[in-house]
Amino acid sequence: MAESNAPGALILLRHGESVWNAENLFTGWVDVPLSDKGVAEATRGGVLLREAGLLPDVVHTSLLRRAIATANLALDEADRHWIEVRRDWRLNERHYGALQGKNKAQIRAEYGEEQFMTWRRSFDTPPPPIERGSEYSQDADPRYADLGDDAPLTECLADVVKRMLPYWEARIVPDLRAGRNVLVAAHGNSLRALVKHLDGVSDTDIAGLNIPTGIPLRYDLDEQLRPVNVGGTYLDPAAAEDAIKAVANQGR
Amino acid sequence: MAESNAPGALILLRHGESVWNAENLFTGWVDVPLSDKGVAEATRGGVLLREAGLLPDVVHTSLLRRAIATANLALDEADRHWIEVRRDWRLNERHYGALQGKNKAQIRAEYGEEQFMTWRRSFDTPPPPIERGSEYSQDADPRYADLGDDAPLTECLADVVKRMLPYWEARIVPDLRAGRNVLVAAHGNSLRALVKHLDGVSDTDIAGLNIPTGIPLRYDLDEQLRPVNVGGTYLDPAAAEDAIKAVANQGR
Repeated sequence: MAESNAPGALILLRHGESVWNAENLFTGWVDVPLSDKGVAEATRGGVLLREAGLLPDVVHTSLLRRAIATANLALDEADRHWIEVRRDWRLNERHYGALQGKNKAQIRAEYGEEQFMTWRRSFDTPPPPIERGSEYSQDADPRYADLGDDAPLTECLADVVKRMLPYWEARIVPDLRAGRNVLVAAHGNSLRALVKHLDGVSDTDIAGLNIPTGIPLRYDLDEQLRPVNVGGTYLDPAAAEDAIKAVANQGR
Repeated sequence: MAESNAPGALILLRHGESVWNAENLFTGWVDVPLSDKGVAEATRGGVLLREAGLLPDVVHTSLLRRAIATANLALDEADRHWIEVRRDWRLNERHYGALQGKNKAQIRAEYGEEQFMTWRRSFDTPPPPIERGSEYSQDADPRYADLGDDAPLTECLADVVKRMLPYWEARIVPDLRAGRNVLVAAHGNSLRALVKHLDGVSDTDIAGLNIPTGIPLRYDLDEQLRPVNVGGTYLDPAAAEDAIKAVANQGR
């Protein structure tokens, strides 16, 4: 627990490699498991938490098993498997629309580099919507039943910011204000949306921001919840630097 | 979800074999992991849930990793890893006092069959209390910090009933009354305490009641939360019968 009035530490953790990351497929809301490498990354994330003495008091996850398993593995390793758990679709990965299940290299070859990069990194241009009832849509998934017609069929990063921020304000901020260390185990784009908000990154600059998998990113916040350490602090800075370069090369 | 007004189904799941079960040690509140066999049992529990179409809407666990991991593995297998999670020390295994970490066969040889069975199965005679600060005490464990001096140093089954029932009433019953299917992933004695309450088992008869590991036990409750199926219904009755015999032979 932090000192009185000071918010707890915020710890962001992007899930380890999934089996579809390994196969270079667009994943989005498709609920694929971690690869063996991803399991090792998640466990290593827990080792880093433990070694830093940075112990979460509560964990927030998306509804996708790659983030949930990452949290479970990291917390077990850090001996914090017993903490409170909160989950919400608002922490899910960006919905990749009609690209879900498609090979990234094939899409790049078929549509060209410019269109490919627009779909991957434009702030406000979503891919085409996924067809309802198609193989990789989530129409029949009970975990989204309460969303009804509000369930997205595609999203750009601006959409993710819009649906993530209400959860940040309503559920994560109260935990931080209670002085609790908060782990958010989520995805490349839901975490980019959060970092954009925290660091005040512009709509343009966010395109160049990559978050590596499995390396906890610590933010210390002042009483107005502004980062004391802008950009955050990775618990393994050298590994983070290497990994950020690798993420930037995805799809090539 | 169940029909209007009818409570949801209650599903009890005792954790799979732990590494200390395998070594025949008294465990209690010592937080040991599942053995490989225990991992397989937990996964099989999830298969049984999925095959029965008995899908939990919310899970309650103890604060011990063998129950938490059992829930995680079973729910992932049943594709329900994303449901709400609640945890509480009141679902923990019975605190085994000074016996924690001791070999069951050695204790039996040293103290004799009668004393051994009294400690294992008497309703209201606890083992000697554990010494504060000793190797297998939980004095310094942050997950029990809020309990202060209320943290037990030993427990008999009557003590478990007493500390478990307030959690049942305050946290589990409201989920059932909301029509939700509730999974309780816990321990031999915390689940015996719950079964004793549900089925109205006498203080004497509860000594002979064993709950097998890894086999979901379903209770359907009427509007007064009395079991419609007294004793519950195992999702794999033949395996449950075999396992109950094996549990009865523990420590021999």
